[in-house]
Amino acid sequence: MLNVSVLGYGTVGSGVVEVLTTNRESIAKKAGQEINVKYILDLRDFPGDPHEDKVVHDFNTIVNDADVQIVVETMGGVKPAYDFVKACLEAGKSVCTSNKELVAKHGAELLAIAKEKSINFFFEASVGGGIPVIRPMVQCLNGDVIEEISGILNGTTNYILSKMTTEGSDFDSVLKDAQDKGYAERNPEADVEGYDACRKIAILTSLAYGKQVDYEDIYTEGITKITDVDIKYAKALGAAIKIFGSSKKVGEHIYAKVAPVMINNAHPLYSVNDVFNGIFVKGNMVGDVMFYGSGAGKLPTASAVVADVVEAAKNLHTNIPVIWDSEKLILTDIKDASQRFFVRLSGSAAENADKVARIFGKVQVVDAGVTEEYAFITDEVKECEFTSKAEELGNVVSRIRVDF
Amino acid sequence: MLNVSVLGYGTVGSGVVEVLTTNRESIAKKAGQEINVKYILDLRDFPGDPHEDKVVHDFNTIVNDADVQIVVETMGGVKPAYDFVKACLEAGKSVCTSNKELVAKHGAELLAIAKEKSINFFFEASVGGGIPVIRPMVQCLNGDVIEEISGILNGTTNYILSKMTTEGSDFDSVLKDAQDKGYAERNPEADVEGYDACRKIAILTSLAYGKQVDYEDIYTEGITKITDVDIKYAKALGAAIKIFGSSKKVGEHIYAKVAPVMINNAHPLYSVNDVFNGIFVKGNMVGDVMFYGSGAGKLPTASAVVADVVEAAKNLHTNIPVIWDSEKLILTDIKDASQRFFVRLSGSAAENADKVARIFGKVQVVDAGVTEEYAFITDEVKECEFTSKAEELGNVVSRIRVDF
Repeated sequence: MLNVSVLGYGTVGSGVVEVLTTNRESIAKKAGQEINVKYILDLRDFPGDPHEDKVVHDFNTIVNDADVQIVVETMGGVKPAYDFVKACLEAGKSVCTSNKELVAKHGAELLAIAKEKSINFFFEASVGGGIPVIRPMVQCLNGDVIEEISGILNGTTNYILSKMTTEGSDFDSVLKDAQDKGYAERNPEADVEGYDACRKIAILTSLAYGKQVDYEDIYTEGITKITDVDIKYAKALGAAIKIFGSSKKVGEHIYAKVAPVMINNAHPLYSVNDVFNGIFVKGNMVGDVMFYGSGAGKLPTASAVVADVVEAAKNLHTNIPVIWDSEKLILTDIKDASQRFFVRLSGSAAENADKVARIFGKVQVVDAGVTEEYAFITDEVKECEFTSKAEELGNVVSRIRVDF
Repeated sequence: MLNVSVLGYGTVGSGVVEVLTTNRESIAKKAGQEINVKYILDLRDFPGDPHEDKVVHDFNTIVNDADVQIVVETMGGVKPAYDFVKACLEAGKSVCTSNKELVAKHGAELLAIAKEKSINFFFEASVGGGIPVIRPMVQCLNGDVIEEISGILNGTTNYILSKMTTEGSDFDSVLKDAQDKGYAERNPEADVEGYDACRKIAILTSLAYGKQVDYEDIYTEGITKITDVDIKYAKALGAAIKIFGSSKKVGEHIYAKVAPVMINNAHPLYSVNDVFNGIFVKGNMVGDVMFYGSGAGKLPTASAVVADVVEAAKNLHTNIPVIWDSEKLILTDIKDASQRFFVRLSGSAAENADKVARIFGKVQVVDAGVTEEYAFITDEVKECEFTSKAEELGNVVSRIRVDF
């Protein structure tokens, strides 16, 4: 029998205990032994909970117990999660976490400690919730050089954009609806401003290139400026607006960003709607692959954590190496990246067409029946060039990057 | 430096050498050492090929060379691949293969030998070509009980069905076009009759439940009876016709089959078109996940084999356990499985409606503007009941299972 302890008995933590309980038998078979939850660390008590007798309030009870071989961290945030996880690893306990912020910030260091101690630090659940994506990328695409990762990495914003599309509603009313349904937090900033997706693309990019990507370096643009009128244009184009966390390798340059993007139905992520997540990866040999599923939620996320626990149990004294050095990966400023832009200008076609032709040359005009506007898609242009040309136009209502 | 030898220098085998050459540097980094191709076994010579000096004709050269630590098997078929692979494993060499027939038939035995010898037998490329699916299923869904696997597992038939849908053409002319383009073999039986998909769903089901699924036990129905008129009806329903290899756990029963199925746009595999493959997996905790990508082709398949080589290199003397016992998994006869059926009858609505109502009760009538036909979708009904009811009808033109 193998003892696990869970740090944080919130949504994911209680999900982990539920998965371990519900699938106890099949998990024991796959792990090679019974997996027992010995302690649950939380500040609160849980009277009436079937596991209330396992709840402890002192982290030292867990870290000092030599019978605890695996620790699950589902507290979220960096403090005190970082100190706890580090202490557990240093005490020779493997750690499985769903904590994207911790992994994005301290992944390299924690992996190095795990390696030194011949144990494991696993974090499959930190990106894409229940979707297998980290292990497939690290183990199954090892023959490839990763050229692009584009992910719908945040269920809340995908739900909002999907609802705006199907119902034609505006951002604020859909956000309110999402909050009422519990899909969005009362303080929605981490989701709608793209910060959550930013941590996740930082993790994926670090793993793809084996070096530390600091998420502060990633250009991040949320969805708060996307309006129902933008969506109307997207529909006229047969396109969808999604928010992607993405990174691209162009020669020796690596670009990373979080931003809304228009995609058409040729893109594998086009039909990833509602709270689902999807991660598209392009390898120089395998071509396009895509992983799809529930990117959040109690049981899907817990399922990924428990799969890590089973892997940790199967490799109790064997470190499975993951290349993620603490050496910083220098991202190239996206001002040098090129793509097409969708642009809306105030004023009629007559007022704008000549000016646009002069500044951008030939463009693809987009007609969605919106009066007193002129909309178009540019050819591929560098971000910095686009920015100065948009300034020259002077009357840009909105602009969205285009990926087709 | 680590020496690999490749058995079979055909499409996939030469792709493996190409991937190892093209990505030599990044692969060495990930594997922890240089990977060198020492021998290539083939009956033919390859004058002018950059690797012609590595070609050998005698398998013993490879199996008796203690410097060869990993063998790639890309010959296909069971004979002589089985003897060669077994001999390599018994000689302490890890084997990575793309050979679905070998794996479906002898997977359990070859995994047992690898375990005994503390080496590895890997076969990621045997299902889904370049798509990571076996390792994700075996390692990332370990917390779940798998309730369903449904896969578009054969690129040729998916291409044919996609073309029939987009172009409205009939089966024979699309097959001819696919053969001309090299997407279908001159003898297309293994693809169009579903035998290829059958091997693949046998492998996935064996891994999902840890026991041997004999592919001879799997009900297999190809796409040769699907006509352009069936597709017309599917379109009228907003549905697509796909051929799935699928297995389902219902209580203690496990059903498996290969057959055409109608799905609608709520299904994650709905937009998997052309030669792409997609595998949908439902776990009791994670819910729906889906893997998408190139299910065949030289470089995508080789990419998966090379990723296995890297894993084998990282675990040269450590067996990564996979649960697949030789004990046979008894599948329940699909005659007891229930689903809805789409049915076309000859004759008008007036001639059929009463009879259908008497035999099937209330049905969903489908109108696709086809004259002298009456088409409908039944409620859920057991296969065996459906068969006897269809016999009673007497004038069934075609019937397709419905998954919505």
